[in-house]
This record gives sequence, structure tokens and C-alpha cells, in this order.
Amino acid sequence: MEITQGENGLLAGVRKDSIHVSVTTISPMAATQLAKLHQEKGAHYISGPVLGRPDVAAAGKLRTFLGGPQSIIDCITHILQCYCGGGLIYVGEDPAHACVLKLSANFCASSIIDMYGQVYALNERWKVSTDITKQLFNLFFTHPGLLAYSEKVRTREYTNQGGVALRGGLKDVNLMLQMGEEVGVPLPYAGVIHDHIVTAIGNGLGDKDWSAFAESARLNSGMPQQEENDSSRK
Amino acid sequence: MEITQGENGLLAGVRKDSIHVSVTTISPMAATQLAKLHQEKGAHYISGPVLGRPDVAAAGKLRTFLGGPQSIIDCITHILQCYCGGGLIYVGEDPAHACVLKLSANFCASSIIDMYGQVYALNERWKVSTDITKQLFNLFFTHPGLLAYSEKVRTREYTNQGGVALRGGLKDVNLMLQMGEEVGVPLPYAGVIHDHIVTAIGNGLGDKDWSAFAESARLNSGMPQQEENDSSRK
Repeated sequence: MEITQGENGLLAGVRKDSIHVSVTTISPMAATQLAKLHQEKGAHYISGPVLGRPDVAAAGKLRTFLGGPQSIIDCITHILQCYCGGGLIYVGEDPAHACVLKLSANFCASSIIDMYGQVYALNERWKVSTDITKQLFNLFFTHPGLLAYSEKVRTREYTNQGGVALRGGLKDVNLMLQMGEEVGVPLPYAGVIHDHIVTAIGNGLGDKDWSAFAESARLNSGMPQQEENDSSRK
Repeated sequence: MEITQGENGLLAGVRKDSIHVSVTTISPMAATQLAKLHQEKGAHYISGPVLGRPDVAAAGKLRTFLGGPQSIIDCITHILQCYCGGGLIYVGEDPAHACVLKLSANFCASSIIDMYGQVYALNERWKVSTDITKQLFNLFFTHPGLLAYSEKVRTREYTNQGGVALRGGLKDVNLMLQMGEEVGVPLPYAGVIHDHIVTAIGNGLGDKDWSAFAESARLNSGMPQQEENDSSRK
């Protein structure tokens, strides 16, 4: 809000009829508030959070959920397509809805990453080879992003390669919980993910890739933490 | 165990060198015990739990995880292929491993069904159309079984069509928790799923399809329970 409303904020010098596309992950409540502030200045606020890892962004193939007046979005489609060759998903007039969808998408991805962590830890303790467990996941999941996370959890290689760090993931999961609270819908997986993120940060993994909370399933089982030279799964 | 060890149990009249393939979902601990009992009789125990819904079984396209001596499994491959045209996955000599994989598969499926329930309830309260939420899931999931469950949760159509009922699902999730306890690995999603199954049974859904626990996300949010003629999502 400071970036928008502050003394040198975006809204201080906004021109009438200008269009602001917000591509970051914020709460639906914040989007509603920002849309109102823009309207008061005669400007347009489009909620357009993007979905995809850094390599997808570099390829210009992000996806985006779009909430706002269709006529305004139509004016800027050519710009959106520059970075969202992966697809534009129009979710309706309400800018809050695009945020609900984006946080729901992050909830899906993080739920599955946590599930990978739980299953890999369990099967490792049962001495099932990680190759067999990987075959199991490959039965269910074909999405390239989910396959990449499955492999990160299998090899326990959580080096942050220009993406969001685990500390940033904590912001997102708090937004998920807040979004549920706002409408009275408990999200028990978000609670589990929250605690796993906190556990992982407490164990020194805060600067790793945000998916590093999958390591918490091992930590909570008393299995040894990742070592720099741990090559047991590679 | 009664079926195997009882007075008229399988093991009472088992012949030397006969082969028993167990296709049901049991705990890895039980599989280890059964393998030992068969060995004492000079018989062979193959752990071969199957994966797939009733329509997949009817088509002879189940998948199976196979644990036991490779040479014994080789003798019966032609029989296994009659009902498992979807694929035989050999997991090694230890019959317990096939059960770990099968319960892990059920854990994956039920984790995702629960996630569908949480997201549909959340988005419905935010007044996001179920068509848009479905588009989100279709980004991530392509597996036909998961797509079928996504649609069940969207339409809230949980009529049991010859498959496992929710009460049977409770057995499976208890086996998951027990499998985790045995090796000291907590499975927090299994705990959530367990409580959602109990909630759904408590609300009269015990005879519905086993995926009906997805309804618990709505119930826990104070949203109205499914009515026989509820057509709000169809």
C-alpha cells in the first residue's frame, strides 16, 4: 500500500485514464482497496497476478489471471501477451477474483510440494528407492512445474536460482490463510504448509528456493538435515 | 489375517509352491507377516495391490505394484496382465514395499481430493465461478482419475457407483497413519483427511463415494450440506 499511497507513491502522480496492471501476488482485500483508490483518481486498476517460475518468465510464457473491466483489458492485451504467452485467463470484472485464483494456484502448488515431501520422507524410511517413488508421482502428474518440484524434493537440491526464497513463501501462505479467514473457510493444508515453512526457516533454510519447506517432513521425522555435499539421492 | 490364518483360511489347505497374489490394500506390516506365513508352508506370497477406479477395473486396465521374488512374478505375468493392462510396476523383492507404494498412491489421490474441496469451498465463498476454478485445476492436472475427482467435487455428485464407500476410505487413511507411525514419519495431510472423513461420516455421508470427504471443507465453513436435489453447481 505504501508503494501506491505513499508520498511518492504511484497514485500521487497518476494521470486520468491511465491503466495500472498489478502483476504481483497480493490479497483479494488489498486488490479491492487499490481498485477503489485508482477509481477515485479516474485511473484504472487491473488485477493481473502472474503464474510461473523464473525460467518460464524468461521465455515470456507466464500465465496471468485478469480481473477488471473487459474493455480496459482489451486495450492492453498486446502488452500482456509479451510476458504471458502461456495464456491470459479472464476471471471477470472483480479485481479481487484474480488474486483469489492466483493464491489458489499457489495453494495447489505448495500443497503438492508438501505432499512430495511427506511421501519421499515416508518411502525413504521404508527403504523404497526414490526412483520407484518418482514413478508413482509420474503416474499422477505431468505438469512441467510440478515435475520440476518433484525432482527438487527427490534430489533435495533447493539452491535458489533467481526465484522466490522460502522467506517470501511465508508471505504467500499468510495471504492464503488471511483469504480463508476473510470468508470463514479453513484451509488446513495452508496451516500445515505454514508450519513447515517456519520449521524450515528455523533450520536455516530461509534463503533456499521457496519449495525447501518440503524438507520439513524429514526434519519432523528426525532425519538428518540437508548437507551441502549430501549426494544420497542424486 | 482371519481370512488367511483362520480355521478355514487360505493357508490351511495351501499346497507347496502355490502362489498367492494379494491385490487388496493392506499395511506393509501385514504383508511382511503374510509373506512369512506363506514361506513356512512352502508357498509364495506376492504383494500386488491394484490402483484404479471401478471403470478402469472393468476395462482390465488397472495398474499394480508388485513386491516379491522376480522369478515367481515372471511365472504369473500373463495372469496379471489380464486385469492390469495399465501397467505392472515391479518394486523389488520386499512385499512390504508394494503396500507402501499403494498406500502412498492413495495418499496422493486423497490429498488432492481434499485440496479440491478446500479450494472449491474457498472460491465459492469468494463468488468465483466454479468454471474458472475448474480452469485453474486443469492447468495443473491431466490424469483422468484426478480430473474425474475434480469434477465430482465441483458438481458435488458423490453417488457411489460400485466403488469404495467413504467408510472404506477410513480404513485406508488409518493404514496410512499406521504406516507413518511405524517408521516415525508424521503425515499431517493424512491427519487432515482422517478428520474430514470422520466429519463427513458424522454428517451422514458414509455410504457415498469415498471422495465425499471433500464435502467437509464446506461443512467446516458452515456452508449448507449437499441436498439430494442440490443443482447449484450443475
